[in-house]
Amino acid sequence: MPRYRLTVEYHGGAFNGWQRQEEGRPSVQAALEEAATALNGGVMPVIHGAGRTDAGVHASGQVAHLDLDRVIEGGNLRDAMNFRLHHVPVVVLEAAPVRDTFHARFSAKARHYCYRILNRRGPAALDLGRVWHISRPLDVEAMQRGADVLCGHHDFTSFRATECQSKSPEKTLERLEVRRQGEDVLVYASARSFLHNQVRIMVGTLRQVGDGRWTPDDVARALAARRRAAAGPTAPPDGLVLTGVDYDDWGD
Amino acid sequence: MPRYRLTVEYHGGAFNGWQRQEEGRPSVQAALEEAATALNGGVMPVIHGAGRTDAGVHASGQVAHLDLDRVIEGGNLRDAMNFRLHHVPVVVLEAAPVRDTFHARFSAKARHYCYRILNRRGPAALDLGRVWHISRPLDVEAMQRGADVLCGHHDFTSFRATECQSKSPEKTLERLEVRRQGEDVLVYASARSFLHNQVRIMVGTLRQVGDGRWTPDDVARALAARRRAAAGPTAPPDGLVLTGVDYDDWGD
Repeated sequence: MPRYRLTVEYHGGAFNGWQRQEEGRPSVQAALEEAATALNGGVMPVIHGAGRTDAGVHASGQVAHLDLDRVIEGGNLRDAMNFRLHHVPVVVLEAAPVRDTFHARFSAKARHYCYRILNRRGPAALDLGRVWHISRPLDVEAMQRGADVLCGHHDFTSFRATECQSKSPEKTLERLEVRRQGEDVLVYASARSFLHNQVRIMVGTLRQVGDGRWTPDDVARALAARRRAAAGPTAPPDGLVLTGVDYDDWGD
Repeated sequence: MPRYRLTVEYHGGAFNGWQRQEEGRPSVQAALEEAATALNGGVMPVIHGAGRTDAGVHASGQVAHLDLDRVIEGGNLRDAMNFRLHHVPVVVLEAAPVRDTFHARFSAKARHYCYRILNRRGPAALDLGRVWHISRPLDVEAMQRGADVLCGHHDFTSFRATECQSKSPEKTLERLEVRRQGEDVLVYASARSFLHNQVRIMVGTLRQVGDGRWTPDDVARALAARRRAAAGPTAPPDGLVLTGVDYDDWGD
């Protein structure tokens, strides 16, 4: 069975997350699997994603793979899936044949996220559902000092959802960068992998620093506490985008 | 009656355009007027906009004015209106008292629009409703040569909707600039005022040049013909944003 890699963009607001749900609840995985069924002799294939994004979380560069019962040119696979996805906000940006040792989830070497805060007095109209609106002006330099505390290898127990199923709470955070861009405050996060809700809890914690309620030292204390309750609240999903996934090789 | 100036952002997809409609059809003007009613002793004020954007057209910098029966601080007016607009994708970015000679529409010296084309193979998912998707690669340099033909003072009869009510078809187009930015092709248009659908017909015409069907000379012929049918099709509203309006003075 030839294997294919997909690069996928989607608007998370239309789905109950990446992962296939109980009947009737829309998921990105199910939408893609249904779109691929006609290309697989009517048998629905399983599609594996690199990141199992939560309900409401977006992607501009999710990576997935699937096996089909036939050989099909990458561009044709992309176009045929997009034709069947025209009614839902998911699109295949790229499709290509890959070696059958390539696994979107297990071969991934880094995942990249960007979290967008709209930091102005008026709420979002044009970008409703795409940002976290925070009206109080945020101190981006203080947020970066708080972010610096979290970079590196740590036990991130304070920054994982209580329902997180990862065996170990230890992760290596390669990048956590806070930048102002006009009315936006952007938080960039990169790691080989993340715990459940880790990016959103880190952003919710940095926000406490940004509006002066917390100092960067409070972030260090929250990290050391190894209790979810010690960190800040979970930021809403709307602002989060999975922007890309890295592999040692693309499996071509 | 003190007069106030509003700067307004909205998502055009939720409305049948700026202008108040027959009962039951949502418009931006009606949403703002209803939001201002409680601040005017229960009497609905009339709100005048600088640009009467069509159904589906967005704004990040629409300007409007209204008279109220009381003096209210600008920031309080903005926040009170936004509180009442929380259920619709319209937001007041700024509100300020102005002299009663200020008129959002008649005092305007320039209107600025940006049209966004998503130029890639896959359709829009994240930005659905915010872009015009064109999959064939566009030649931006050729589009700019076509745009240069349209700049300046001309009879734009070929570039106005047949239902356009403007007395004269003559307008001075100050700027028509085409730029590539990643997967986007952006068209910036500025003029003191535009005819009905003028920006969208210009973009629809430049698209013919961008994909090689037309030459810049064909644009000149379309302009000279002074017949709507001689120009290209009207681009969809989704990609168009009214980004700002200029005044000689802000009326403060």
